[in-house]
Amino acid sequence: MAANINAITVAVSDLERSLQFYRDGLGFSSPGIIGTEFIRDDQHPGGSVAMFTLDNGLILSLYARADLAMDAGIAPERVVGSPMSLGLFLDSREDVDLILHRAEQAGGTIVRPPLTRPWGIYAGYFADPDDHLWEAVYFLGSTPG
Amino acid sequence: MAANINAITVAVSDLERSLQFYRDGLGFSSPGIIGTEFIRDDQHPGGSVAMFTLDNGLILSLYARADLAMDAGIAPERVVGSPMSLGLFLDSREDVDLILHRAEQAGGTIVRPPLTRPWGIYAGYFADPDDHLWEAVYFLGSTPG
Repeated sequence: MAANINAITVAVSDLERSLQFYRDGLGFSSPGIIGTEFIRDDQHPGGSVAMFTLDNGLILSLYARADLAMDAGIAPERVVGSPMSLGLFLDSREDVDLILHRAEQAGGTIVRPPLTRPWGIYAGYFADPDDHLWEAVYFLGSTPG
Repeated sequence: MAANINAITVAVSDLERSLQFYRDGLGFSSPGIIGTEFIRDDQHPGGSVAMFTLDNGLILSLYARADLAMDAGIAPERVVGSPMSLGLFLDSREDVDLILHRAEQAGGTIVRPPLTRPWGIYAGYFADPDDHLWEAVYFLGSTPG
């Protein structure tokens, strides 16, 4: 069976705001919000979602917190926190600095300014408007894999 | 600049347990825990991590909660919750059912048994031992992208 992650769905409080952050702020490409024909009700999650097909084929989806909770059948109170970080590998220190700057300009936050880690990376963390963690990474030696 | 996610780091409470869940339970391939030469202290995160290079080149990393908090410079209390789900696209309904069964056998939980969604998927949710959400998806029509 496949050993893969094909899509990452991040729960957001405001779909429009997050679409702007990723599309206009970070420069990710998206056709915008789709699936609005599937209306949320007491029993069913809504279908409104903004999707980005990334350069490597991975799908990044933005989905309302209430919808993710309802779709997964979990309590909304569980759809919180920052227990994962999404890693973006970049080609230079300057690109790491730049994406953190862009994220901040677009309404995100710089969680940790870039610094060199002993395992051979120059990396910093930013968060999107919902505090989802991203790590921007430049490998000082060769890239992994 | 790249629009990508190259790595996903999930915070775990017990690195060995989670390595077993993903490697022995789900069948993902990993060389095991590496980076143990970088010891955690009051000022610095540890380097111990278990990495899986997935079929599509994406890196899935398991990293201790305390290390992720320290590395990102955030409060450990923030490294909680289930605000993202990782989507695994499979080739059949049977594979969706099977991976949920495997996850449960390996110490995870079936969060939502598979069912057909109005947007054309057969999908169910499971959680790893740290409650990280995964959605196992079979597309009833054609795959997206």
